[in-house]
Amino acid sequence: MDPTMAAPKELDSRPMNDGDGANSYSQNSSYQRGVVEGAKSVIFETIPEKLNINLPKTFQIADFGCSTGPNTFLAMQNLIEAVMLKYNQSTQKATTPEFHVFFNDHVDNDFNTLFKTLPSNRPYFAVGVPGSFHRQLFPQASLQIAHSSYALQWLSKVPPEVANKGSPAWNKGKIYCAGNEEEVTKAYFAQFKADTDAFLKARAQELVEGGLMVIQIPCVPNSEVLPSQIGAGLNSEFLGDSLADMVKMGVISEEKLDSFNLPLYLPCIEEVKMVIEMNKFFTIEKICTLSHPSNNNSTPLDIRRTCADVRAIKENLVKDHFGSENMDQLFDLLFQNYQKNQILFDKVARQDVYLFALLKRKGNI
Amino acid sequence: MDPTMAAPKELDSRPMNDGDGANSYSQNSSYQRGVVEGAKSVIFETIPEKLNINLPKTFQIADFGCSTGPNTFLAMQNLIEAVMLKYNQSTQKATTPEFHVFFNDHVDNDFNTLFKTLPSNRPYFAVGVPGSFHRQLFPQASLQIAHSSYALQWLSKVPPEVANKGSPAWNKGKIYCAGNEEEVTKAYFAQFKADTDAFLKARAQELVEGGLMVIQIPCVPNSEVLPSQIGAGLNSEFLGDSLADMVKMGVISEEKLDSFNLPLYLPCIEEVKMVIEMNKFFTIEKICTLSHPSNNNSTPLDIRRTCADVRAIKENLVKDHFGSENMDQLFDLLFQNYQKNQILFDKVARQDVYLFALLKRKGNI
Repeated sequence: MDPTMAAPKELDSRPMNDGDGANSYSQNSSYQRGVVEGAKSVIFETIPEKLNINLPKTFQIADFGCSTGPNTFLAMQNLIEAVMLKYNQSTQKATTPEFHVFFNDHVDNDFNTLFKTLPSNRPYFAVGVPGSFHRQLFPQASLQIAHSSYALQWLSKVPPEVANKGSPAWNKGKIYCAGNEEEVTKAYFAQFKADTDAFLKARAQELVEGGLMVIQIPCVPNSEVLPSQIGAGLNSEFLGDSLADMVKMGVISEEKLDSFNLPLYLPCIEEVKMVIEMNKFFTIEKICTLSHPSNNNSTPLDIRRTCADVRAIKENLVKDHFGSENMDQLFDLLFQNYQKNQILFDKVARQDVYLFALLKRKGNI
Repeated sequence: MDPTMAAPKELDSRPMNDGDGANSYSQNSSYQRGVVEGAKSVIFETIPEKLNINLPKTFQIADFGCSTGPNTFLAMQNLIEAVMLKYNQSTQKATTPEFHVFFNDHVDNDFNTLFKTLPSNRPYFAVGVPGSFHRQLFPQASLQIAHSSYALQWLSKVPPEVANKGSPAWNKGKIYCAGNEEEVTKAYFAQFKADTDAFLKARAQELVEGGLMVIQIPCVPNSEVLPSQIGAGLNSEFLGDSLADMVKMGVISEEKLDSFNLPLYLPCIEEVKMVIEMNKFFTIEKICTLSHPSNNNSTPLDIRRTCADVRAIKENLVKDHFGSENMDQLFDLLFQNYQKNQILFDKVARQDVYLFALLKRKGNI
C-alpha cells in the first residue's frame, strides 16, 4: 500500500517499472486501483451534474500520467459511463457520442505494454500521447475532460536547495519532505506550486470552456498532520531507513545517501486549493478527501504487496542515483523494515486519505 | 533497396524489427526515405491545389502504417509544409493552425522507439494510435488528411488457398505472388482488393468531406510486367531462393518451405484504380507512378544495405514460420544470392517505380 505512487514526469526523471513482469507497475498497482474504485461514486454524482457544455458528437478525454494500466482503463471507463448518464439525461439524447481517449505519460513510459493491454471491448478510440504534462500536449480547446490520478504529487525535479549542504533547506537524514523542517517543506512546496501551476496552465489551453478536470492525489488529512505521520510518508521513511541500513553495512556511502531526495510532495487540501485559486483558470466544483476502500477492511495489510508496489514505483529513481547493483538487497531490507513496523504502519496507513478535486475551465479570462 | 517494405497489419502478423539496433527498421529503411523524398514535389504541387475545405484551427493528419520512424516524421513534415502553403494563400491567412499528427501502426509496433525519436523541434502535437488500419481507428470526420506509405502492399493474411496443396492456387516453389501462375495471382489480388477496400471504408469514416488521402505503394509499372521482373519482386525471389538453399542443406524441410508465403501483393496501377472506384467513397485526384530518386544515381546499388533492409522488414515473418535459430545463416545466404545476381538486380531495380495516389473524400453517398 503506497499512496504516493505514480510516475515522475520530466525528461530527466524515470517512469515506473515497465513491462508486465514480477516487478512491473502493471502487476503492482493494487493501491491505485482502490483509489480509482473509491472515487467512482463521486465521479458518478458530480460529472453529470457539473458537465454543462454542448454535448459534442466526439467526446475527448485525456488521462495525464496514465502509466501502463490497468488502472487508467478502469478510470476512463468510469468517466465514460458518467458522461453517458449526462447524454442520456439531455435533450441531445439522440446523439450517441464517439469517445476518443488519450493516454498521456512521459516519453519513457512503456506505451508498448499500455497498448498491448488495452481492453479489447473498449467503447472508445484509444491513443497514446508521449510527453511531460507540465507542457501543452493537445491543440487548444480540444478536450472535454482531463483526468489525473496519483501523478501530480511527483515533482518535475527535486528542489536543488534540499540537496545542498550549505543551504538552510538541506534535507539531512531524510530522503523526502517529512514535514519536520520548515525550510525543507518551503522548498518542496514551492516546487509543487510551480509544477501544479504549469500543469493547470497547460490544461487550461487544452480544455474547452466549461470542460472538467478531475485530480486525485495523496495528501495529508489536514495541515496539522505531518507527511511522516501518514502511510504515504512512511513508505518513503522506510525506504530512507533501508538506505541508511546500507550505509551502516558499508554498501553505499553516507554522502551518496545525503544527496538523494525523492521528487515527491504530499500536500494538504488547503495548499492544493491555494494553487488552484492562484492559477485563476479553473473554478473548484468540488474538493474533498476520500478514504481508500481498503481502510474498512479488517484483515492485516499485505506488506509484501506494499513492498512490491513501492519497488515498482520508486526503483528507477533509486537506481538512477545509486546504480542498479544492490536493488534486491535494498528491497529485502525494506521488507524487513515493514515487518519491524508492521503494527504502526497498519494503524497509520488505514487512516490515509487522498484528495479528490473536480475543477471547471472558466470562460476566457 | 527493397521497394516492398513496410509492416503487415493484422493481429496475427508481425511488425518490422523493433528498437534501433543493427537489424532494426529504424536503422534500415533508406529505400523508404527515398520514396518520401521522391514524392515531396508531387505533394507540394497537389496538396495546396486539391485541399478545398474550410481550413480549421486544428488540422489533423494521420499516417497509417508509420512503423518506427524516421521516414514517417519526414513525410508528416512535408505534408504540414504543403498544407501551410494553402493556409498562406487563403483568405484565412490570419489563422495559424495547430497540427495534431497521429502515428498509426499495428499494436505490436515499437511505439516506445517511435516516441523516443520524435523530432524535438516538431511543429505539431504527436500522438500514437495502435491498431489495424483495416478498421476504423478515429472518430467520424476527425481527419483532414490521411497518409499511408509502403504499407498497403502488405495483406492482412496470406490467402489460404495458396498454401493448400489440393488447391489450383497452390503456390508451389514460390514464397510470394510472382505473377507466373494465374490462379495464385487471382487469390492474392482478391485479398489485396478486400484489404484495400476495408482500408478505404475505414478512412472514409474518419476523413472530413473533401479530406485528402495520400497513398504510396510499390507496384509493377504496367499489367504486362510480372512482379518477378521488378526489384521489389526479386527481393522476395532471392529470399525464396535462400530458403530453398537451406532445404538443400537439410536445415529446413521442403514441406515447411512449401507452406510459407509472404502476405504481400505488388499491384499494377489499373488494379489500384479498380479497387478505389469499386469502393466509391473517394475521387481519384491524381494517380501515377514515380521513380525512386536513387534510380538516377550511377553508382552500383549497395546490396549489403538492401540485404539489411530486407532483414529489418521480413525477418519477423520468416521467424514466425521457421523459428528463430537460423536467421543469421539465412541472411548470409540471401547476401550471397544478391552477389550472384548483382548485375541483373542492379539493372532491374533501377527501373522500379512506385504508385502515388491522391484521393479526395466525396460528400456523403
